[in-house]
Amino acid sequence: MSGAFKIVGISGSLRKASFNTAALRACAELMPDGVTFEIIEIGHLPHYNEDLRVNGGFPADVEAFRAKIASADAILFATPEYNYGVTGALKDAIDWGSRPPNQPFAGKPYGMISVTGGILGGARGQLPLRQIMISLDGMPINNPQVYIGNAKEKFDANLNFTDQAGRDFIKQLLVKMVALGRQLKK
Amino acid sequence: MSGAFKIVGISGSLRKASFNTAALRACAELMPDGVTFEIIEIGHLPHYNEDLRVNGGFPADVEAFRAKIASADAILFATPEYNYGVTGALKDAIDWGSRPPNQPFAGKPYGMISVTGGILGGARGQLPLRQIMISLDGMPINNPQVYIGNAKEKFDANLNFTDQAGRDFIKQLLVKMVALGRQLKK
Amino acid sequence: MSGAFKIVGISGSLRKASFNTAALRACAELMPDGVTFEIIEIGHLPHYNEDLRVNGGFPADVEAFRAKIASADAILFATPEYNYGVTGALKDAIDWGSRPPNQPFAGKPYGMISVTGGILGGARGQLPLRQIMISLDGMPINNPQVYIGNAKEKFDANLNFTDQAGRDFIKQLLVKMVALGRQLKK
Amino acid sequence: MSGAFKIVGISGSLRKASFNTAALRACAELMPDGVTFEIIEIGHLPHYNEDLRVNGGFPADVEAFRAKIASADAILFATPEYNYGVTGALKDAIDWGSRPPNQPFAGKPYGMISVTGGILGGARGQLPLRQIMISLDGMPINNPQVYIGNAKEKFDANLNFTDQAGRDFIKQLLVKMVALGRQLKK
Repeated sequence: MSGAFKIVGISGSLRKASFNTAALRACAELMPDGVTFEIIEIGHLPHYNEDLRVNGGFPADVEAFRAKIASADAILFATPEYNYGVTGALKDAIDWGSRPPNQPFAGKPYGMISVTGGILGGARGQLPLRQIMISLDGMPINNPQVYIGNAKEKFDANLNFTDQAGRDFIKQLLVKMVALGRQLKK
Repeated sequence: MSGAFKIVGISGSLRKASFNTAALRACAELMPDGVTFEIIEIGHLPHYNEDLRVNGGFPADVEAFRAKIASADAILFATPEYNYGVTGALKDAIDWGSRPPNQPFAGKPYGMISVTGGILGGARGQLPLRQIMISLDGMPINNPQVYIGNAKEKFDANLNFTDQAGRDFIKQLLVKMVALGRQLKK
Repeated sequence: MSGAFKIVGISGSLRKASFNTAALRACAELMPDGVTFEIIEIGHLPHYNEDLRVNGGFPADVEAFRAKIASADAILFATPEYNYGVTGALKDAIDWGSRPPNQPFAGKPYGMISVTGGILGGARGQLPLRQIMISLDGMPINNPQVYIGNAKEKFDANLNFTDQAGRDFIKQLLVKMVALGRQLKK
Repeated sequence: MSGAFKIVGISGSLRKASFNTAALRACAELMPDGVTFEIIEIGHLPHYNEDLRVNGGFPADVEAFRAKIASADAILFATPEYNYGVTGALKDAIDWGSRPPNQPFAGKPYGMISVTGGILGGARGQLPLRQIMISLDGMPINNPQVYIGNAKEKFDANLNFTDQAGRDFIKQLLVKMVALGRQLKK
């Protein structure tokens, strides 16, 4: 029930004014007591390309990314829906995180939130992310599924996430991520 | 039944010795009579990021990529399966190709081939590509579905694609792509 | 551009007061000129079971279902989303329609509409139907994708579909089904 | 680490000589020590139809099915791939199991095996089952993923599952199901 717990957050969007990234920043205020939260950047990572590995090692940026994932107890994705899928940047990051020798994502709970301008809130785009995470052995949180539609009504001019219902759903998601993570450590 | 027809090929893999890219090169020898074939590079394209657009324009490399897609009558993807999905590079390229003003992929037939070292031949990875192509209004060829498993037995040391059954399936796929493309132009 | 054209409609829901079936009934009023429309029942079909075939023949109800599909130029599905998938009744019907000797669905355009009580309108449930239809060689209409959410506001007490925006989307879908069907016949 | 543990098995195929059902029967011999295993029939369940509920109650066969799921600590699916999806019978059964008041599948580990005559072993068909199980809050075992292709070489004339590699994969799967189930109970 206790002990240190760290969640890392990854936004699939690279846009500075991204609603998804803004929602992820808001998660810092919603963490359960005693949980550490760190947002990891992925935009500078190259496309996945096995040729970039030298003697089995990863490029330095990739190695640093992998080390941050390895340091986490759970992963929180803010994943926009681009053409019913995740972004290329997110896919590249996950693919970099999937290769041996170690498996930094394996056995860890992961949660998802998504934000869209339209009403669907990314309902279609989260499903491919679940499929991608199967072979990394991620442990999905099934619900709540946090779909934040009509983004313009839910963020203020400074991109603060002001939607109370959405904030409550995220809190529920985080509580479940921590609870599952603690169970799996036992 | 006649008239110029151009297929562009895109490999999702960036690896120099990629089996998928090698299979795509082999497709040049398998084209129906009178069909032009050009392989388009995508590895140099940046991650999709709306912030890279200036006054609605795309970065020069992206613009050139989009123009090549626009010049095509049909698209042939060689799509490796990474963690049950397409590669980040391919997703980024498609996302760049999906944005207004014009829609270079729309209404065009697309076919898929995939190669893997294992026996499954990418059977899982082609499905997410179909899902991605929905909102671009691509016209999928349903079959044959070209899954090339056990890659090491099917390419020689110079990465020539030597598998006759696989070559015949690709020929069937190309014939269907051209036939559908011609019907849709009427 | 002309000639007889027949669309058959299938609702995945067996509930008498189904909103999906009600939306399908409304489609009869929205057909393009000269297009015949017939709704096919599927609730009485047994679960797919190869053992029910005798000497290669299908049970009589199945045979009749297959003949109706064979008579159509295009298929319109009204597909509720049950647990992010299609209904078992619809899957059984499609599976019955997929078996040799003939392929009644092959090469025909199909469109999808879905209705839900919540706001998402079945956005997730249509994707698995597309996946199912691949091996039947159905030709999907990519858009418009007709998601009818908040059903209670869009149907009157007699289950008439009163939502003008939704009716217009269905009209667009039907026009595209007919246009594609005519192109593919050439 | 100990205590009673019950796995129930469900085959999606209704065919008497089904390889999937035969593989499920073989699982009885592969159970970890102290684990009870029961195969549940689903072929007699009606198509899901909310109209069949009376005063909120389920038909007797459905109620009995739900009670068996409720009695289990984990679920093992033998799921054939029909047109890249699960069977209608399996979908109907799961949908019946998904409705309130109680949630018999929720929070329980589930594993999947699939058998096909071709080489792919059902690799595509297991993915939709994972998607279906999300809203039931099933806890998927990510690997091993048991794909049994080339069925005719792996079962004898009496449908005994004779493939040692496949049997070993199933054992691994069962061990993981039990381990996860025990962790989640803590």
